[in-house]
Amino acid sequence: MIDQSSELPNDKRLRQRAMNVIPGGMYGHQNAARLPEGYPQFMQRGEGCHVWDVDGNQYVDLMCAYGPIVLGYAHPEVDTAAASQHALADVQNGPSACMVELAELFVDTVDHADWAMFAKNGTDATTLCSMVARATTGKKKIMVASGAYHGAAPWCTPVTAGTTADERSQLLHYKYNDLESVDAVLAQHGDDIAGIFVSPFKHDAGFDQELADPAFAQGLRDRCDKHGCALILDDVRCGFRLQHGGSWESLGVTPDLSAWSKAIANGYPIAAVLGNNNFRDGAQQLFVTGSFWYSAVAMAAAIATIGILKREQAIVKMQQTGQQLREGLEKQAAAYNVAINQTGPVQMPYVTFACDRDHSVSSLFAATAIRHGVYLHPKHNWFLSAAHTKTDIEAVLTATEKAFAVVAESMRQEPA
Amino acid sequence: MIDQSSELPNDKRLRQRAMNVIPGGMYGHQNAARLPEGYPQFMQRGEGCHVWDVDGNQYVDLMCAYGPIVLGYAHPEVDTAAASQHALADVQNGPSACMVELAELFVDTVDHADWAMFAKNGTDATTLCSMVARATTGKKKIMVASGAYHGAAPWCTPVTAGTTADERSQLLHYKYNDLESVDAVLAQHGDDIAGIFVSPFKHDAGFDQELADPAFAQGLRDRCDKHGCALILDDVRCGFRLQHGGSWESLGVTPDLSAWSKAIANGYPIAAVLGNNNFRDGAQQLFVTGSFWYSAVAMAAAIATIGILKREQAIVKMQQTGQQLREGLEKQAAAYNVAINQTGPVQMPYVTFACDRDHSVSSLFAATAIRHGVYLHPKHNWFLSAAHTKTDIEAVLTATEKAFAVVAESMRQEPA
Repeated sequence: MIDQSSELPNDKRLRQRAMNVIPGGMYGHQNAARLPEGYPQFMQRGEGCHVWDVDGNQYVDLMCAYGPIVLGYAHPEVDTAAASQHALADVQNGPSACMVELAELFVDTVDHADWAMFAKNGTDATTLCSMVARATTGKKKIMVASGAYHGAAPWCTPVTAGTTADERSQLLHYKYNDLESVDAVLAQHGDDIAGIFVSPFKHDAGFDQELADPAFAQGLRDRCDKHGCALILDDVRCGFRLQHGGSWESLGVTPDLSAWSKAIANGYPIAAVLGNNNFRDGAQQLFVTGSFWYSAVAMAAAIATIGILKREQAIVKMQQTGQQLREGLEKQAAAYNVAINQTGPVQMPYVTFACDRDHSVSSLFAATAIRHGVYLHPKHNWFLSAAHTKTDIEAVLTATEKAFAVVAESMRQEPA
Repeated sequence: MIDQSSELPNDKRLRQRAMNVIPGGMYGHQNAARLPEGYPQFMQRGEGCHVWDVDGNQYVDLMCAYGPIVLGYAHPEVDTAAASQHALADVQNGPSACMVELAELFVDTVDHADWAMFAKNGTDATTLCSMVARATTGKKKIMVASGAYHGAAPWCTPVTAGTTADERSQLLHYKYNDLESVDAVLAQHGDDIAGIFVSPFKHDAGFDQELADPAFAQGLRDRCDKHGCALILDDVRCGFRLQHGGSWESLGVTPDLSAWSKAIANGYPIAAVLGNNNFRDGAQQLFVTGSFWYSAVAMAAAIATIGILKREQAIVKMQQTGQQLREGLEKQAAAYNVAINQTGPVQMPYVTFACDRDHSVSSLFAATAIRHGVYLHPKHNWFLSAAHTKTDIEAVLTATEKAFAVVAESMRQEPA
């Protein structure tokens, strides 16, 4: 309950209370300490592409809960499907029929997939992929791109506190889009590689995004075939935002395994691992499970979400509004003579500023945007949803215009 | 969708379809291949303590979804609280106020807790405990009881397929209720122990359960104090079924950290780590997170569940029906001259049969019970919920009477 009698804003009072009962007041990617001043820590509600914080401030949202919201918050059709399932049951002694339906839908939708397994966290999915790869190949080592985020378990969290060297000892690093660096690792360890993780594009937080070079993608595929290891596409962040059939569908490069989560069910908690038949036996050998991995409500929501995505051509919509946003920002930056770099797919936009290594410019930009009613992130890619309309993007651009003005002014005062 | 035109039972047809799109047709603890013939793989709905499979067969349920359902399926008050929160939002760019409320409620309810963190899986919670222990102590090794289940991540899954030796190299084993075995490990590695995991009682699947010897519990506490390591109570399976304040409350032994999940929110997906102030700084150092760890609906459901548990004295109810069940089974076993062993707390009952190492007798017992409308498990402890009434237990006993008759008959035919 929020105490309405106090004169402090609700967010501030909740932060004080949280400081007592949550280490550091918050943790993980939703810790507002990672954001500029002016951002709320606690949110109240969402509808379409609009969100409200606990003090009633309304924003056009460009974060989509860091990805899960792909059709818009509180999507009536998804919520109805979930509620219908909930009226029957969620967690039970066994899965519901919808688990089979969802697995079939994934296999139908995603080209490389012959089978599916479900879990709760994106990290569950990436960890499962590494286990399936190891069980299938009998090999130990896992290759990841330096700086890539594949989850927050001890083997992959970007912060090593609380982990042991042993837990990360089988991890080897290559450079994204650099086959030479892949070959250097393979030359040394090629006999013991179980799998190579790769993101659909380079989306390391805080850096310019980089699309996958088609030759790099194909080169990884060739090397996995040659060395008998799994090509693992980590589609947790991108899945169902770029292409229905997996985010390398248009490249024509098929992974052996893929990890999914965020956008599968428009916000209902679920993760998935998809694999081809070469990795089916390995998957069967594992004992992996979770109390809520078979829960039906998120699966029903996923079936609805994927159906709507296809029917309403949600990805095309996101591309159109994304393009509108990119062009608008480009014009504004030029008008204010602020050098920016817009990278990544337009529906997962990211903006960096020249000579902004400490993110002070992007923080100023974001702090101004949020004050003018737009929730974007200074150090992490943004996400569009199918709920964003042309008008919403215009509203975003009204706020970013002000943010560019503030940034331009600060640059005049403190030339780089 | 289930094809009603086929003459095969729905469960059979779903299993066939699942075999195509899910490795082995199913995985994990809800894989019906682990159960005797006659058990459904796929469930349809639940209400109170009654469940229905996809062919419409109704059962009195003694598994409670393997623990989460502590107040009964589809509990109206919990579901209303969850729906009210859902009408606002679930996953967002930040947590809702109810995250702070739930953390406060845990700290108020559970004696040893000064703070709380939330996640999705029980395995998330146990893994987090090990990370907090390591970050706080700067030590590496983790002690667990041989045969204890602490989750299904590579470091703890009971099946090593897909894991590497390195991931489990910091794990050391002691024997439950045996301080000498603890001391033997400490003598060798006492300087490098980050934490000792312990279950509230020994509940290894397939074996008689064993309550914690109070001297053992206190002895662990003393040794953790002496060696500067964390006493970690894994309350994932027992939490909120034995005592409100953590499952060692009545022993007066307080852990440093505890892991919770299953019953927290009566089936909504959530896990929690609770800790005392000595471990707060360590917790703050970690980067741990998940896309759905801050989702509000399960937190609202948890607040409702804990409130109802206390108000309705749910644990006392479960103890009463558990006692009724235990006494009824004892009488039936005696009448049929079948030697059984009933172990563990009455609200988490487990029955083994003499000379039944291969579980053939318990499987026959379970297969007969399910045919007569009672869903229990041949190799895993059962769970009562507050929804079980005296009448429901009588219905259970009517079925178990038949199961004892079948078991007694089989023993006459094949004397052990």
